[in-house]
Amino acid sequence: MKVETLDHVLVRLRAALEHDDLVAAAAVIESLQPADQADLVEELSGADQVALISKLDPADSADVLEEMEDQEAAALAELLPPADLADILDEMEMDEAADVLGDLPAALVAETLREMEEAEEVIPLLQYPDDTAGGLMTPAVVTLRREWFAQQALEVLRRAEPDADSAYYLYVTGEGGRLQGVVGLRDLVVALPEMVVEALMDPAVISVPVTADQEVCARTLSRYGYVALPVVDEDDRLVGVITADDLIEVVENEATEDMYRMVGITGAEMVFGPVRASVLKRLPWLAVNMVTLFVAITVVDAFERVIAGMVALATFLPLVSGQGGNAGSQTTTVIVRGLALGEVTSRNGLRALSRELAAAAINGAIVGIGTGLAIYLWKGEPVIAVAAAVAMVLNFLVAALAGVLVPLGLMAVKVDPALASAAFVTGVTDTLGFLFFLGIASRLL
Amino acid sequence: MKVETLDHVLVRLRAALEHDDLVAAAAVIESLQPADQADLVEELSGADQVALISKLDPADSADVLEEMEDQEAAALAELLPPADLADILDEMEMDEAADVLGDLPAALVAETLREMEEAEEVIPLLQYPDDTAGGLMTPAVVTLRREWFAQQALEVLRRAEPDADSAYYLYVTGEGGRLQGVVGLRDLVVALPEMVVEALMDPAVISVPVTADQEVCARTLSRYGYVALPVVDEDDRLVGVITADDLIEVVENEATEDMYRMVGITGAEMVFGPVRASVLKRLPWLAVNMVTLFVAITVVDAFERVIAGMVALATFLPLVSGQGGNAGSQTTTVIVRGLALGEVTSRNGLRALSRELAAAAINGAIVGIGTGLAIYLWKGEPVIAVAAAVAMVLNFLVAALAGVLVPLGLMAVKVDPALASAAFVTGVTDTLGFLFFLGIASRLL
Repeated sequence: MKVETLDHVLVRLRAALEHDDLVAAAAVIESLQPADQADLVEELSGADQVALISKLDPADSADVLEEMEDQEAAALAELLPPADLADILDEMEMDEAADVLGDLPAALVAETLREMEEAEEVIPLLQYPDDTAGGLMTPAVVTLRREWFAQQALEVLRRAEPDADSAYYLYVTGEGGRLQGVVGLRDLVVALPEMVVEALMDPAVISVPVTADQEVCARTLSRYGYVALPVVDEDDRLVGVITADDLIEVVENEATEDMYRMVGITGAEMVFGPVRASVLKRLPWLAVNMVTLFVAITVVDAFERVIAGMVALATFLPLVSGQGGNAGSQTTTVIVRGLALGEVTSRNGLRALSRELAAAAINGAIVGIGTGLAIYLWKGEPVIAVAAAVAMVLNFLVAALAGVLVPLGLMAVKVDPALASAAFVTGVTDTLGFLFFLGIASRLL
Repeated sequence: MKVETLDHVLVRLRAALEHDDLVAAAAVIESLQPADQADLVEELSGADQVALISKLDPADSADVLEEMEDQEAAALAELLPPADLADILDEMEMDEAADVLGDLPAALVAETLREMEEAEEVIPLLQYPDDTAGGLMTPAVVTLRREWFAQQALEVLRRAEPDADSAYYLYVTGEGGRLQGVVGLRDLVVALPEMVVEALMDPAVISVPVTADQEVCARTLSRYGYVALPVVDEDDRLVGVITADDLIEVVENEATEDMYRMVGITGAEMVFGPVRASVLKRLPWLAVNMVTLFVAITVVDAFERVIAGMVALATFLPLVSGQGGNAGSQTTTVIVRGLALGEVTSRNGLRALSRELAAAAINGAIVGIGTGLAIYLWKGEPVIAVAAAVAMVLNFLVAALAGVLVPLGLMAVKVDPALASAAFVTGVTDTLGFLFFLGIASRLL
């Protein structure tokens, strides 16, 4: 479905709503895929959303709410009569229902839960943070026993609730619900009816603990090539299942968050969110950088008399610090991303450092010599040329050192390296860049 | 499996190989999950890898090769006798087999294909680039007909090859293999034997064209919440299936690539790859920045006499350009990421611009006034304080303008915005930062 077409559909939807023709409006929505439905509903006013939802059957409304952004879904949920909301939540995947409830006021949550048929299933999920395995999982509805025949297992599956449709793998549990193995649905279907589940199952099943961070879940699933992942509690009891489609979104969001943090935007800013949020999310880092910049310029200030003696030095001040900053952000990005993907650890940090120092020495030498030559050809000032070239090499080495050690250090003290590394590293390369350049120049003069 | 444990296993594996005890070495490998097997095999020398693979059965070797990094897998494949390699590739997922073959010399590819039983399946895949739907898909092995009974469909599934285990959804095709619908495997299993496929299937099946970029595939799958995605050719014929686990890796790699490109690292640099590669991948951007920095400092150079008259101006030069650069990279990151995720388009670009300009005006005013006050308190120089404050506000607006328009402009001329935006935007904020600050100061003096 093209975006242009969706715009057209929106015009029709708005027209139907303006004429209070809710039947026509509902028909427009019903003709679309849930993701597209959600996009359109998000464009409507709260009152129109409520009117429209009242016309859809709860299963369709559930699809729409599942696809809406979390905040938008919660805002709409808050406008609905609790009984209607309960009917809709009953039709949703339990992890999504828990996400919606988690964003509502406590009184409304209590009232809605009283009306929900699936309350018992969703309540345990409310205790887990959104960004953990517990917050992503859906309760495991169908489990098998190792002593069952394939035939029996299929019978159980047939009798299971229809919303157990995420059952691509069937998990085998033993006493107390402990996870013992996994059987692919297809293997079960293809097996002879009298085969025992134990013979079909893979006992080396990979699971994640219910407290695991969502990034760990995504990495585990992609590493082992599954499309779903079982979640266990501290006693190795199966408590839920995470499916791959939810994790794709996790990987995308985590990457966005890290990219934003690298440039000092805290939290998940939305491109078209309120301006106020943008301002507040970006200001702290600008303030931190103001401090590091002021630290750096005290160095320049200390050399005021040297600069007064040779004003051309001022012209070349931004070069050494600027290129050091660029080299530093290259190293920082490689290390921060490596930490996020689990490729860089405290164990191989030294190896990463020696590699970065080697690359910095070579790049620093090439860029430094190039810069020195360019300055000499332009100004014919050997002192500035030599000072810039030597300072550049030194600053590249500092950039590599800081670019590796700052993220590793922040990781060690449990601060997200994506959040704070760039400001620290740039602060170091700015300050030392000025110091190297002006210090060397003043010696040479 | 903890990393520490894997280190232990590696010691045992190395010991077995040193004593030429290939049986013991193979036993060590066979006790692990494929992803862990691959990690260990990658640590061995080429000769040890070949010796070990010769002891594993082809299905196990196939699992190992699938999990190895593409380059490592290709390097090992090149060392194996073509007949052995063919046996292994026959056991692999066809998309992975095609990836391995794609990295081998043409003569070896021809020889291996002659020995492969699945040659006919893999040859069509060799024509698609790795990063398109065609390069990610596995040929669809089991398809259903709408007029079949559920019973019949299950029979077909039973008779299908055992490596059709990615069949979470079964696709329904009509005349000429055209895609007509999709049936969940579970729905088929649960259905009454005499139900017709047509009644079970969802005709509104979402597919991607074989030429679709891998990012589009990932976004489509996550948007519609599936764990697999059918791939069709230009005539809407089903040619393959992409599973979610492959796409998680795609999303991770694309995000890494974009993060790297934002700081001027071209291509997929590996944290522990060769230093030479790092140097070559980072130098071009450092060179581009050298040029933009030299452009910027010609502005400073032009104001040499103004600076000579008030040397303290030199001290504050880095402030306006530095903060402009920070604000610029915040905007650029939001827009570049928004373009990558499909949230920002040329259609809503103007809305994004007005939002960014509003945020820039507020942040610029706050940071500018703060800076001006700090300078006045430190130096007591009203001219520098006012020049810095006003220049900062102007430069924040420039940063917002460039941060939105540069990525959108690059997108319009089909250059990856992630690759070139940062250099352009920083060039603009550096140059204009110096110009605003020194220009205003010289007027005031």
